[in-house]
Amino acid sequence: MAMVCLNDFEKYAKEHLSKTAWDYYSAGADECCTRDDNVLAYKRIRLRPRVLRDVSESDTRTTVQGTEISFPVGISPTGLHCLAWHEGETATARAAEAFNTCYITSTYSTSSVEEIVAAAPNGYRWFQIYVFQDRKFSEQIVRRVEALGYKAIVLTADVPYFGNRRNFILNQFKLPPHLQLKIFNGLHQQENAVPEKYHTSDPSITWKDVHWLQSITSLPIIIKGILTKEDAELAVEHGVQGIIVSNHGGRQLDGTLATIDALSEIVGAVKGRIEVYLDGGIRTGSDILKALALGAKCVFIGRPVLWGLAYKGEEGVREVLQILKNEFRLAMTLSGCRNVAEINRNLIQFSKL
Amino acid sequence: MAMVCLNDFEKYAKEHLSKTAWDYYSAGADECCTRDDNVLAYKRIRLRPRVLRDVSESDTRTTVQGTEISFPVGISPTGLHCLAWHEGETATARAAEAFNTCYITSTYSTSSVEEIVAAAPNGYRWFQIYVFQDRKFSEQIVRRVEALGYKAIVLTADVPYFGNRRNFILNQFKLPPHLQLKIFNGLHQQENAVPEKYHTSDPSITWKDVHWLQSITSLPIIIKGILTKEDAELAVEHGVQGIIVSNHGGRQLDGTLATIDALSEIVGAVKGRIEVYLDGGIRTGSDILKALALGAKCVFIGRPVLWGLAYKGEEGVREVLQILKNEFRLAMTLSGCRNVAEINRNLIQFSKL
Amino acid sequence: MAMVCLNDFEKYAKEHLSKTAWDYYSAGADECCTRDDNVLAYKRIRLRPRVLRDVSESDTRTTVQGTEISFPVGISPTGLHCLAWHEGETATARAAEAFNTCYITSTYSTSSVEEIVAAAPNGYRWFQIYVFQDRKFSEQIVRRVEALGYKAIVLTADVPYFGNRRNFILNQFKLPPHLQLKIFNGLHQQENAVPEKYHTSDPSITWKDVHWLQSITSLPIIIKGILTKEDAELAVEHGVQGIIVSNHGGRQLDGTLATIDALSEIVGAVKGRIEVYLDGGIRTGSDILKALALGAKCVFIGRPVLWGLAYKGEEGVREVLQILKNEFRLAMTLSGCRNVAEINRNLIQFSKL
Amino acid sequence: MAMVCLNDFEKYAKEHLSKTAWDYYSAGADECCTRDDNVLAYKRIRLRPRVLRDVSESDTRTTVQGTEISFPVGISPTGLHCLAWHEGETATARAAEAFNTCYITSTYSTSSVEEIVAAAPNGYRWFQIYVFQDRKFSEQIVRRVEALGYKAIVLTADVPYFGNRRNFILNQFKLPPHLQLKIFNGLHQQENAVPEKYHTSDPSITWKDVHWLQSITSLPIIIKGILTKEDAELAVEHGVQGIIVSNHGGRQLDGTLATIDALSEIVGAVKGRIEVYLDGGIRTGSDILKALALGAKCVFIGRPVLWGLAYKGEEGVREVLQILKNEFRLAMTLSGCRNVAEINRNLIQFSKL
Repeated sequence: MAMVCLNDFEKYAKEHLSKTAWDYYSAGADECCTRDDNVLAYKRIRLRPRVLRDVSESDTRTTVQGTEISFPVGISPTGLHCLAWHEGETATARAAEAFNTCYITSTYSTSSVEEIVAAAPNGYRWFQIYVFQDRKFSEQIVRRVEALGYKAIVLTADVPYFGNRRNFILNQFKLPPHLQLKIFNGLHQQENAVPEKYHTSDPSITWKDVHWLQSITSLPIIIKGILTKEDAELAVEHGVQGIIVSNHGGRQLDGTLATIDALSEIVGAVKGRIEVYLDGGIRTGSDILKALALGAKCVFIGRPVLWGLAYKGEEGVREVLQILKNEFRLAMTLSGCRNVAEINRNLIQFSKL
Repeated sequence: MAMVCLNDFEKYAKEHLSKTAWDYYSAGADECCTRDDNVLAYKRIRLRPRVLRDVSESDTRTTVQGTEISFPVGISPTGLHCLAWHEGETATARAAEAFNTCYITSTYSTSSVEEIVAAAPNGYRWFQIYVFQDRKFSEQIVRRVEALGYKAIVLTADVPYFGNRRNFILNQFKLPPHLQLKIFNGLHQQENAVPEKYHTSDPSITWKDVHWLQSITSLPIIIKGILTKEDAELAVEHGVQGIIVSNHGGRQLDGTLATIDALSEIVGAVKGRIEVYLDGGIRTGSDILKALALGAKCVFIGRPVLWGLAYKGEEGVREVLQILKNEFRLAMTLSGCRNVAEINRNLIQFSKL
Repeated sequence: MAMVCLNDFEKYAKEHLSKTAWDYYSAGADECCTRDDNVLAYKRIRLRPRVLRDVSESDTRTTVQGTEISFPVGISPTGLHCLAWHEGETATARAAEAFNTCYITSTYSTSSVEEIVAAAPNGYRWFQIYVFQDRKFSEQIVRRVEALGYKAIVLTADVPYFGNRRNFILNQFKLPPHLQLKIFNGLHQQENAVPEKYHTSDPSITWKDVHWLQSITSLPIIIKGILTKEDAELAVEHGVQGIIVSNHGGRQLDGTLATIDALSEIVGAVKGRIEVYLDGGIRTGSDILKALALGAKCVFIGRPVLWGLAYKGEEGVREVLQILKNEFRLAMTLSGCRNVAEINRNLIQFSKL
Repeated sequence: MAMVCLNDFEKYAKEHLSKTAWDYYSAGADECCTRDDNVLAYKRIRLRPRVLRDVSESDTRTTVQGTEISFPVGISPTGLHCLAWHEGETATARAAEAFNTCYITSTYSTSSVEEIVAAAPNGYRWFQIYVFQDRKFSEQIVRRVEALGYKAIVLTADVPYFGNRRNFILNQFKLPPHLQLKIFNGLHQQENAVPEKYHTSDPSITWKDVHWLQSITSLPIIIKGILTKEDAELAVEHGVQGIIVSNHGGRQLDGTLATIDALSEIVGAVKGRIEVYLDGGIRTGSDILKALALGAKCVFIGRPVLWGLAYKGEEGVREVLQILKNEFRLAMTLSGCRNVAEINRNLIQFSKL
């Protein structure tokens, strides 16, 4: 099977993953309108490419939080990588390191943060956290990953409760016995289960908890799960360093707008004061170009990484990243841009005949 | 068969109900454009959820006509519950009572109002009437249900004539011989049929008949079947206490707009002077959230109750209500609202890129 | 097979007509975009029904050119009725007479005008003509039908050349040997064919030929095939008595807008100075209501008449007309209108959320 | 198999061409959104035909660059005609000559320019070039075709890099051994391959290279691959003689707007200072009419020529051109235009109900 685009990896994963793993990764909330619209929304956006602009030298590098990455695609936090590949998150970490891009490690990782860091010692990484009811435990996590060299804390803001993923209810998802969410080591209960209070954020958290988080770490804080200009404005006011426009891959509230459709108003509100990222629905280099044209500093991919893992572990993730990098460079140059600084809103067609 | 969403109940009902019953319940007028658009219209509306708002305590309660109900979903009047479950409307009444919500009993019930009241003595109920040519009979009904403790009269305004439901013509729908429309006791003709003059409202009724109705009862009057701001304004002017935005589940005039698409202009015209409700197309908690965000005080469900009855009688209706309640609470909190008072138009995306 | 709506007649006709006849009647130009959009366009228009308006007495009558007809649906000119039913246009004429509505006889009729008049002596009829290169022959036709009591001349304006109906080219359509286009009696060539110069209008005709037509007849003249406000304005300026908004059932220029989409601008330009009619895509009573709400004085149906003929000749056409009349009366009253004078633009939803 | 429209030729070609040839010709970039939208976009545009305008005499002729052609459809540059028909581009040249229209010969032709000129000595031709890194070679080509009587140079601007055509990657496209890209004679490497530096333009080219091109030829220069008003303005400023609005048949950057959707803004910017042409998606006479109504001076067809070649070589291309010419003349006259000068924006419906 030739792997020439991300869809090929999705097909492979669907065919080769266990039903448990496939259902876990592909799940969306309720009727999956938002999960699917994340992808479809890109296809409704039309590009206005420019020609004859000397694109013989092209440069896909950008920076996030002041650190250079090789192209504007990072890895969004997703859990349970050991479900897709026996090496789990260590494989993902090595692929991200090889591509010199940012890997946001999930709290629900099946490799430990120490294993991840050991596997890819020079990798650039952020850590995704929930603010648990058990604040002490969250604080321990933050201090532990800060000590390990993680460069930012990504606070997931859209999981006060667990989304209504129908196939989870149907299949009563349980982690296979040989896998563990390593960060909860010692907190596991019978049958390998993590206590329910660690399944979501403390639903009582507010912007005040961002201040608490700032009080326990000097790392930049990035809020993941923002979909409105109002919350983007609040994020700026509360002094965070970045926003990830995200609807959690359509796994939380079904019916929200696609992330690419939410991006414009947020970028307009933020006015460059902090960096705005996006995840959800990225499948081709053109998608990346569109997101950057609408103001994203960088995009993050979730499920495609899992498909890459399912295919060949680290090598599969590298193939996924390589395809996206090639496609992005090509889309950038074919639209007349030499580098990411030249990508702007004029590339987007806002009305038609 | 696991029942995790309302669609599962629909599938079950389609498979297990008699063809007569299924065709009766699922029927829409003419080409069923409006029946189907009632559902699809919700999927075109996008939500703008807010985050980090302390949703640890959430409260789904609201009031209708000053009475508290446990969540903003009541039961719309539908007929012939005995076609779906042998206990008929008494089962529905018990489920509504258990959920402390409003059950609008249909004139075309196959349980008597006395049986309904006896089955669920503490239930909160409204009664749906037609103004028949035989005004005396309508008056008797109103006095009878008022005496039995019904709390409002719901006047169906959109049935001056019977809608053109093609499968009724094809199948020549007849009530099975063992069932009776109990309110017409004594008025039945041969073959169990109710005389045709009791099949619809008197087609001559106008807003003057609302005054007549006000003269014979002190109960609040709610007009069901309004789809325009002009009629909403007239409703307010005529001193009724509420409006149900409804197209009769798409069973009357095919081609009318979906109820959720009609809601905004009506809410805008009413300006809070009376309560505005809605029925038609509600299938998930997100749908409820969208209707409330656009100004509905409460929504009512019709066919899903019949599917619940077909599944397991009272227990089935309770399962349907429980799913909607869970989904609504989750949608509400995931959108950043702690209670129904916090739900407003800012949750709705009015334009896209 | 129960016949409860016009679609049932279409299905019957497709199954029972010869392939030659079905292909002839159903043909559209090129890719059939316009033929199909004529029907689909109605489904995109939403109604705003009014309630509580005393519709106990309803009246579907209207007038066209000052003559009362029983409901606002006439019969559009279509040719070759003998292909569908052995009695041909005489059957159609009797059905139209029975319903007291207007039957526009086609030049390409397979019954003679004398046979048509004899079959339905009290029928109200208009005659559709082409202005042939052979003006004398056109003049003879006009004088002949005027003498026979036809009440208006309908000039087809959109056939300077024959539309590109792909299945005609494929099948090399020929009239079966036992059928004749009676008006061309004596002009037929070998193999029953009418000379090609009688297949379309003289392509040189202009508005001046309308003056010529006015000079040879005192009958009202109605222009069929207008789709723009500019041509509607010219029609008024040239003193004709009516316009039929038509795209020839999608058989001439593919890609034109649907007739219901063209209607509004034409009605706006005409400002009531002459009557505006419409044909194309009418399948239900709601469609008629929408066309009248947007300003049509009357609609005309083409293919549904042929399906009725195919079903049962005169009786089949009567069934088609009866269904439309019932559906229209119901749609009218369910929208709160007692008569056609009360139907207006407020019934149409012009924007949505 | 009757060939009554261009789709029939596409079907034939798909069935009869080798998989290699079909895949090469039909390929689009990435997900083929743009390739497909080029065709679909025409179907979203509605025509407003005029009637009664004396279209007895019609004239489809127009001029491009001051030269008369028989109708406003030329042949866009496509490569490898020998893959479709053994005579290759010589067959195409003869068909174009027979129709007195413009044939833009591709650099990637499998017949030599001398063979092409010999085959159709009176043909009107332009030559499509890339500006290669090897400027001398490009200059040689220009001088050679100028000497051979080519009348304009068409500079392809949208191929600084090769588009991401997934089926090329999958199938590792290679020219069959018996075919040669004749212009590269002597430059071929082993296995018949042209060195990679001749696969695309020099990616460094800019508008300055247009000046270089002007310095080596006195022929008019036409830029192919412009999709924005900004680049159209630059084209005018740099003194070129024409623009072809093109997205390379959807083979370069996927996600760009359809050419017919890009046309209006470009025509608006150019304001008649130079001629604007278009290619992509033309399949019927109505499509040509729409493009001219929106301001194109002439359209060019690519894949349909290849389908015609696959069918019957020169004769097949003539059939394709004949169908388009017939359909265009019919669409033009049915819309009330006698000649191309009478085609204007009023034919287009810009808004609907």
